[in-house]
Amino acid sequence: MAKPKKQPRPKAVTPKGFRDYFGAEVTQRTEMLRTIAGVYHRYGFDALESSAVETVEALGKFLPDVDRPNEGVFAWQEEDGDWLALRYDMTAPLARVYAQHRNDLPTPYRRYAMGPVWRNEKPGPGRFRQFYQCDADTVGTASMAADAEICAMLADTLEAVGIDRGDYIIRVNNRKVLNGVLEVAGLDAVSYPKNDNLREAVSSSFQNNLRDQVLRTIDKFDKVGAEGVSALLGSGRKDSSGAFIEGVGLETEQINRIVNFLEGASYIFLEEDIRETLEKIGTNLSPSSSNAGTLHNLWQLVEGSETGQDGVKELAQIAELLEAQGYETQQIRIDPSVVRGLGYYTGPVYEAELTFEILDEKGRPRQFGSVAGGGRYDDLVKRFTGQEVPATGVSIGIDRLLAALREKGRVSSAAQGPVVVTVMDRDRMADYQTMVAELRNAGIRAEVYLGNPKNFGNQLKYADRRASPVAIIEGADEKSNGLVQIKDLILGAQIAENATLEEWKERPSQFEVARAELVAKVREILAGHEDA
Amino acid sequence: MAKPKKQPRPKAVTPKGFRDYFGAEVTQRTEMLRTIAGVYHRYGFDALESSAVETVEALGKFLPDVDRPNEGVFAWQEEDGDWLALRYDMTAPLARVYAQHRNDLPTPYRRYAMGPVWRNEKPGPGRFRQFYQCDADTVGTASMAADAEICAMLADTLEAVGIDRGDYIIRVNNRKVLNGVLEVAGLDAVSYPKNDNLREAVSSSFQNNLRDQVLRTIDKFDKVGAEGVSALLGSGRKDSSGAFIEGVGLETEQINRIVNFLEGASYIFLEEDIRETLEKIGTNLSPSSSNAGTLHNLWQLVEGSETGQDGVKELAQIAELLEAQGYETQQIRIDPSVVRGLGYYTGPVYEAELTFEILDEKGRPRQFGSVAGGGRYDDLVKRFTGQEVPATGVSIGIDRLLAALREKGRVSSAAQGPVVVTVMDRDRMADYQTMVAELRNAGIRAEVYLGNPKNFGNQLKYADRRASPVAIIEGADEKSNGLVQIKDLILGAQIAENATLEEWKERPSQFEVARAELVAKVREILAGHEDA
Repeated sequence: MAKPKKQPRPKAVTPKGFRDYFGAEVTQRTEMLRTIAGVYHRYGFDALESSAVETVEALGKFLPDVDRPNEGVFAWQEEDGDWLALRYDMTAPLARVYAQHRNDLPTPYRRYAMGPVWRNEKPGPGRFRQFYQCDADTVGTASMAADAEICAMLADTLEAVGIDRGDYIIRVNNRKVLNGVLEVAGLDAVSYPKNDNLREAVSSSFQNNLRDQVLRTIDKFDKVGAEGVSALLGSGRKDSSGAFIEGVGLETEQINRIVNFLEGASYIFLEEDIRETLEKIGTNLSPSSSNAGTLHNLWQLVEGSETGQDGVKELAQIAELLEAQGYETQQIRIDPSVVRGLGYYTGPVYEAELTFEILDEKGRPRQFGSVAGGGRYDDLVKRFTGQEVPATGVSIGIDRLLAALREKGRVSSAAQGPVVVTVMDRDRMADYQTMVAELRNAGIRAEVYLGNPKNFGNQLKYADRRASPVAIIEGADEKSNGLVQIKDLILGAQIAENATLEEWKERPSQFEVARAELVAKVREILAGHEDA
Repeated sequence: MAKPKKQPRPKAVTPKGFRDYFGAEVTQRTEMLRTIAGVYHRYGFDALESSAVETVEALGKFLPDVDRPNEGVFAWQEEDGDWLALRYDMTAPLARVYAQHRNDLPTPYRRYAMGPVWRNEKPGPGRFRQFYQCDADTVGTASMAADAEICAMLADTLEAVGIDRGDYIIRVNNRKVLNGVLEVAGLDAVSYPKNDNLREAVSSSFQNNLRDQVLRTIDKFDKVGAEGVSALLGSGRKDSSGAFIEGVGLETEQINRIVNFLEGASYIFLEEDIRETLEKIGTNLSPSSSNAGTLHNLWQLVEGSETGQDGVKELAQIAELLEAQGYETQQIRIDPSVVRGLGYYTGPVYEAELTFEILDEKGRPRQFGSVAGGGRYDDLVKRFTGQEVPATGVSIGIDRLLAALREKGRVSSAAQGPVVVTVMDRDRMADYQTMVAELRNAGIRAEVYLGNPKNFGNQLKYADRRASPVAIIEGADEKSNGLVQIKDLILGAQIAENATLEEWKERPSQFEVARAELVAKVREILAGHEDA
């Protein structure tokens, strides 16, 4: 008889592009999400948790960013023929939820959502196919007060999680202003397409035209600066590798107009001129604000374009509201160089950057960069209902923000280990369990060693791996004398590193106390380390 | 030219078997998970968040419960040919994680995990394909102290989230005792299969044999009682519909042995006899404990079966440890009628039930039932590594536990709405935003009405839908006099329901205060409602 074929063992691996999170990695994120939810809640936003799975039909086939329209989702077909997929962001599900439940939801509907999203992308170093997003959106109002509120809330959120004022900047632009500038420059004055198949249209008809090339070039402003963009909009330039990049071929005046637009935030104007412009825009914004200068510049650049002027007016409203609430341009400011991809945004766009420097993988200093972004998208719900529903919102990249806080030392990466009660006599497990029960009832994290107790060294090695602050020892002698040994492992480690033999012999890191004093002594040791 | 075919609008629906959670449904769950994590942390358990996606190979193809071995997972094939799937529980991923990272993890490894799991089952009323689990497991120790600890932690957890002592019972059994009883009764003495393809083996070879029929019948004890089980193990019985159910056909002595086993917890024995048995078992358990009586009974029933005696000894160890820590049999007790499916458990099994009554959909009282369960499974990691790794753990059904707390009125189902600042003058949005900023800075949840402000009635309707406690009104008159109107909407609703016309006219639910008094007055009103 043939032997049954032995099945090979399964491999114990995460799928490519996925990873596991352990201990403090999980609890720090949970705490951060809790802090953020607290701010959102105070702003009147309600929690929403939609299912991780959506119909492919409801989700739409493409991601918002046009530069990668074919990035995939994880999808599968049901027995009944329906295609389902994992959500790739929180915005598409929000549009579906709002369309589905709009009669039961308040309008405007302020909601926040936090959780994992999944992208079927090629995994790369530090690039995962499951990651956390934390979104807040206001659906059902065209008021710029909604956009201003999101920006204010974003600033409050960053400060609440531990990013100091001065270490972040929220930059605000408006897609309409950009469109206005291009219109005045004679570049494809057709306004941004507003139809049901918005994103598809963008990816196909815009792909190869002049305006799209201009937008892609503008998006490089952060990297190549004004000079670089000028060259790329004109006859081209050599990149850092020496390769020549073909230019878009615009005329000098067109180029100047665009570069003036991008650099608008850094010009200085006469207050007299600014006052005059603010009056035309119809805003109470303070003329001495740097935002006022930027708006003055933009207003000149969009002269002749109604879309552009609308955009400037919208920015002025946002700036005025934020000024009235006491937000400074050091926290939130109008900055025309923010493009935020070329996706579905239809009005204001905003982006939060962390401005402190970190060292990159080669040890060179660089700015930490973007941790959140968003904007106004007025067409997403319309896909379902046919009615235009204005909406605006922001998405925080939780994993990046957490990484930033670790860089700044704002979250400790050390886990708080438990007190370990060692097992000297395997038949007295009940005694040891009673000790941990007492410690836990006093709010102290504690556990009994549950491995094979035969080798005491292994128990201390275990305590070390658990980052335990304290170990408890009760052998037969201690038991009969009503005593316990308490080992201060943190102090012990310090002594082991620095102490002389004399100091070592004194063993000041180990204490013998009455069994009844166990909890009090452990508490005293832990408190000492907290103060340190 | 043919018109381009217009695409139909996508349907705004959740996929079948999935749902959305709004507001308090989300925040209450988050709070409950936080409380549970607090208890687990204090017990020394570390957080683990594995990816939602696993390779089908690592996951195994089947769910743990043998009575539905073909229940599916959501799976799809990658471009490179690999099959991936959403996790269906937290245990299979734990086995994978432990096998993958065992050199970096402490042993024993105590971990907790909380999050959604997905099952590709036929959706039904109240039965969803995505739901939350919250697991705690100890991997790498065969010590019964680990099982006792999980039971103790489960009791602490239930009390921490708001289930009173007396409203729950954790029942503990041991698969080995059951096997011993069957062995002594001459029913398929082969011990439970321990091999790599454990679950497959169970579902195929056991499916139709006598022992399996006996186990399935025992599992009905909760529903049909001792008499029903006796009949079903013998010649059969009529069910409630009058249909005759064929019996298993055991002999009377076999049946008595099994029923004695199931009823073991309710017998009364002579303390003298109990003492003698406890000595044989080798436990310090108090002879007056009801657990002692149960163990005494079991010990008689498994006489002659080594497996059965091992099982009774294990239960005695658990009972002794729990007694030493002060847990009462009202909280946790040995109960042989717990079977916990016929799946992968190899030793102790435990189940938490809520014992208070609720009304079912037909208005009849019934016990709330099981909210958590688990046990020892020594073979899951072996699938990957070939080495046996003992493990034990529990899974709490979060959604059921939350439903129970709502039944008991322990979580309020009413959301806490924000203070709504109404908009009387759309040009003074900055004034209104300043008010909400002041309120929020004082820690008060507040928002400006962002809909079309033209119709004031709509603003109050909105406040009503948001369950707002307070509305703020500042018209032109108030503004010029430095005043604001503050409407107590909760009091207003009470008056509207009960008040006479006279009382109504006095409008005691609306207050006019100086603008500078806004925050203080709102705080006073909110405090009044909190006290009420």
